Amino acid sequence: MKHGGDLFQAMETYGGAEEDWLDLSTGINPHAYAVPAGLPPAAWTRLPSQTALKGLLKAARAAYQVPAHLGLAAAPGTQVILPHLPALLPEGSVTIAGPTYSSHGDAWRAAGRQVIETSDIFREGPEGRIALIVTPNNPDGRWHEPQALLKLAGDMQQRGGFLVVDEAFADVEPSRSLLPHLTDEPVLVLRSFGKFFGLAGVRLGFLAGPRLMTDALAQRLESWSVSGPALEVGTLALQDLDWQAAMRKTLTQEMAVLEDGLRAAGLAIRGGTSLYVLAGHPDAARLHQALAQRRIWVRAFDYAPSWLRFGLPGSPEGLARLQQALAEAMASHDEATPC
Amino acid sequence: MKHGGDLFQAMETYGGAEEDWLDLSTGINPHAYAVPAGLPPAAWTRLPSQTALKGLLKAARAAYQVPAHLGLAAAPGTQVILPHLPALLPEGSVTIAGPTYSSHGDAWRAAGRQVIETSDIFREGPEGRIALIVTPNNPDGRWHEPQALLKLAGDMQQRGGFLVVDEAFADVEPSRSLLPHLTDEPVLVLRSFGKFFGLAGVRLGFLAGPRLMTDALAQRLESWSVSGPALEVGTLALQDLDWQAAMRKTLTQEMAVLEDGLRAAGLAIRGGTSLYVLAGHPDAARLHQALAQRRIWVRAFDYAPSWLRFGLPGSPEGLARLQQALAEAMASHDEATPC
Repeated sequence: MKHGGDLFQAMETYGGAEEDWLDLSTGINPHAYAVPAGLPPAAWTRLPSQTALKGLLKAARAAYQVPAHLGLAAAPGTQVILPHLPALLPEGSVTIAGPTYSSHGDAWRAAGRQVIETSDIFREGPEGRIALIVTPNNPDGRWHEPQALLKLAGDMQQRGGFLVVDEAFADVEPSRSLLPHLTDEPVLVLRSFGKFFGLAGVRLGFLAGPRLMTDALAQRLESWSVSGPALEVGTLALQDLDWQAAMRKTLTQEMAVLEDGLRAAGLAIRGGTSLYVLAGHPDAARLHQALAQRRIWVRAFDYAPSWLRFGLPGSPEGLARLQQALAEAMASHDEATPC
Repeated sequence: MKHGGDLFQAMETYGGAEEDWLDLSTGINPHAYAVPAGLPPAAWTRLPSQTALKGLLKAARAAYQVPAHLGLAAAPGTQVILPHLPALLPEGSVTIAGPTYSSHGDAWRAAGRQVIETSDIFREGPEGRIALIVTPNNPDGRWHEPQALLKLAGDMQQRGGFLVVDEAFADVEPSRSLLPHLTDEPVLVLRSFGKFFGLAGVRLGFLAGPRLMTDALAQRLESWSVSGPALEVGTLALQDLDWQAAMRKTLTQEMAVLEDGLRAAGLAIRGGTSLYVLAGHPDAARLHQALAQRRIWVRAFDYAPSWLRFGLPGSPEGLARLQQALAEAMASHDEATPC
């Protein structure tokens, strides 16, 4: 499975309509920021204005703690930014701290770059002139602390290279973001709007870094790539620091309950953030299937057959449904493989 | 002025708030397709689904008369597609039938291509392996008929090249579109959603052509580039063939009235479509300024100082305001330059 979120694939294999499914395959916040009932008509009818874009970037700069000297560009989702990075950054091979979100490697390979994945980029050191790290990492939730990233950025600078840091899930713990620590290092940071705000349909993402690079991206994306509704809703949500603080607490509490439930069902917790948890079980493939047969879709991993990633169910009913399904799946498991 | 629609620039130069201005600088339909009051929450909260994308492409295929054997890809606006074309198409220089919308040349030059602009691509023949034509052309509204375009496509095929046809404004006269005539020619056709449907904030555009090319674009844009609201609203509007037919009549009628008004004010009609009219006046630069001082923003052209392009005012009040402003501007003109 290349992406999370492809419930379509689940429906094709296991049947059921979209509303029958409890989709836990993404790390998207189930408690979405409330979209105003009536957006201004101009958000739909007019070309997105430079004024609205500036307002969005100002709100994003504050929410993400982007230093004033750095550039910031908006795009219709970080996915749209990835294929532009090879043209913005130095030639040569790319070292990715993995395993991680596969779209990064895909984008670089599509541009003809050699991609090296390493499980310990800090010990082994990156090959080539591009290093790429996701923090907190997806799916294991591992954080790379700012000091370690700054040291790596220094190494990249010495070889005329660049460090790309994907902070797609960093909203859950802004105190661990690299962004406020950046001075003039050769670092680009990706931020994703839809996950933490629960508005993945809006399509909105950001690139922060040296102004020359973010300006070049903005030029490549052209003037109006972010939609009027995204400018409107994104600005409101990013400005709402109270909602963000309260949501961090809610997510932390709900994730603790989910982790307890998974442990009680016999799974081991391997990592995660407050938007997804990585669980381990020796028979994960069969569990994945048993959950899917009960119309619960979680994330499985080709490269790690004992892992399953769970997003938050978002309601007591969803949690109860998951726990019931896990209990049934485990019971049938015990019968099938008596020891 | 690079793009139409940059009212921001007008406000910076001439002052006034956005609501003070009558913006006639774009070719966007002032009678927008009505966005439903409450879109399904999932359009905002969920990752745009493959099911919704398929629905959109089906509606677009019918509305745009795209033959079944051709591919069709959606993007968050045609502007986002342009910088990807150089990577999809053969190497070498690009001949553009001009003068036309400047973003095409900009995108190819940014990719390091030589761009040749010619005022008669059919007589002179294109240089290089890429030919690019906008039909109906912007700003003069000139149509290039399917038979002429098919012949040009044949010429391009013989040299291993490609023809790119931008039908951004072709919705106003679908009987003149090249799309239904295409078989296996090396032709890519761009379509724009926001102009005819008056929903430029939605960001939605399409590329039709050989499946290998449209698939490659879809892959480069990644899975979720078109927003959930755009999928929802785009599908509804493209399916609504009755609205489209009625709107064509409305636009034609309103444009006839606008053209009469411009002629009555002393301008010559040089061309256009039912979404914009190209007018000529020896003193166009001063007229442009006089209109701007009255908070009416129209399109001027660096390369053709006697041209002004007017979009539809969209209401009797807007039309009266334009006519009043034109009358005042012409009167002051007569005073300033007595002959």
